[in-house]
Amino acid sequence: MEPTVHEGERLDYLVDESLKIIQSPSVFSFSLDAVLLSRFAYVPIQKGKIADLCTGNGAVALLLTKRTKAHITGVEIQERLSDMAERSVQLNGLQEQITIHTGNLTAFPSVHHNGRFDTVVCNPPYFSSNNDRDYNDNEHFAIARHEIHCTLEDVVAVSSQLVKQGGKVAFVHRPERLLDIVSLMRHYRIEPKRLQFVYPKAGSEANMLLIEGMKDGKPDLHILPPLVVYTEGGNYTEQLKKVFYGK
Amino acid sequence: MEPTVHEGERLDYLVDESLKIIQSPSVFSFSLDAVLLSRFAYVPIQKGKIADLCTGNGAVALLLTKRTKAHITGVEIQERLSDMAERSVQLNGLQEQITIHTGNLTAFPSVHHNGRFDTVVCNPPYFSSNNDRDYNDNEHFAIARHEIHCTLEDVVAVSSQLVKQGGKVAFVHRPERLLDIVSLMRHYRIEPKRLQFVYPKAGSEANMLLIEGMKDGKPDLHILPPLVVYTEGGNYTEQLKKVFYGK
Repeated sequence: MEPTVHEGERLDYLVDESLKIIQSPSVFSFSLDAVLLSRFAYVPIQKGKIADLCTGNGAVALLLTKRTKAHITGVEIQERLSDMAERSVQLNGLQEQITIHTGNLTAFPSVHHNGRFDTVVCNPPYFSSNNDRDYNDNEHFAIARHEIHCTLEDVVAVSSQLVKQGGKVAFVHRPERLLDIVSLMRHYRIEPKRLQFVYPKAGSEANMLLIEGMKDGKPDLHILPPLVVYTEGGNYTEQLKKVFYGK
Repeated sequence: MEPTVHEGERLDYLVDESLKIIQSPSVFSFSLDAVLLSRFAYVPIQKGKIADLCTGNGAVALLLTKRTKAHITGVEIQERLSDMAERSVQLNGLQEQITIHTGNLTAFPSVHHNGRFDTVVCNPPYFSSNNDRDYNDNEHFAIARHEIHCTLEDVVAVSSQLVKQGGKVAFVHRPERLLDIVSLMRHYRIEPKRLQFVYPKAGSEANMLLIEGMKDGKPDLHILPPLVVYTEGGNYTEQLKKVFYGK
């Protein structure tokens, strides 16, 4: 039976026509950040286990299936969102590969697979909970965007618990949190290895960063080529299209 | 009396014809790093005090005179290099603006101007002293390139002692030391504010970083637009020329 798309939701293509995703403009929609994270992270190709924390409506988990046959567990605290993710998994016939777990990620490691994931990815809330400048009246948006139910430290600590020795942990975040992220990663024994900055246009300051570390890895940080999203004319750059569509 | 250019030395233009610098290919020559640091750092324009630590043959100090009327003190441990710097200062008639101090930078703050500099800049040795992979038999190169007489921590600690509250400290270094640099800066109360990565070519990993912090500043890190040095054809990019020549 085809899963229902509820009122106020819509069925969108996820990047290209080979994946579909249930979204709701009033609740949650995936963004460029999710796509870039799903392309950036190291993943085992044939087998293994991947955790996608703060999976939201499942965009990163769904996109990762294009790059790996490993099993993916998406963890989402908001039932409204995890339900959308679950239905999207069914719509794409990916029930064998993706499990959606509803609950706070801080409770996840004690129940499931401590230290057994090859890769952990997370597109966490970007804003601190006491920063009300961007605070959104909509509760779903607020929880997804602000550190209400999990802080950056929670995300890093849990990632470190879940990932195996030598496994990879990748995040997408805002550049102004860079120093916090790298401090926390080192504190929780995830040594930063690859760092890439995303610039909205050539000549602009970065507005996004992608970072990947290795559990108990040796210090050896590489700064990847800059990724510029838009041309002066406001279209995606060729570089972005290549990352985005694999073309 | 015109200062002497010794045997084995030569008189070069420093970027353009308005500045000259004494160099010696067998002892020390300035590099792109020095030019970029001199362009990157915040400097007071009309008056104030600037310290250039690890000044070498004085390239950064000399270049800064194009941007500021503040007094500049160059600190260099190697007498062979500080002597070259001193003669270059004289050759350019900049004795009023630049003082060259010969000695270990760790001894500098106790004698001079603790907490009184508006800006401190440093192009420090890049390699740890126990990293002999790039170790150079030439003692002058070895001291300039390896942390033999001062570690990165010495550089950051001394910079913090020298700079006034709210003053700026700018470094050029290698990307693989990013995490050490930002950790040390925060430890010594220099809050990173501006970070720029330099890429040899578009599509390459960064091979240099420029970072500036403010003494006791609030956290607010900006990642500046990437700086790409060479075109595919091996010429300077237009962007680099603009930084380099101000064109």
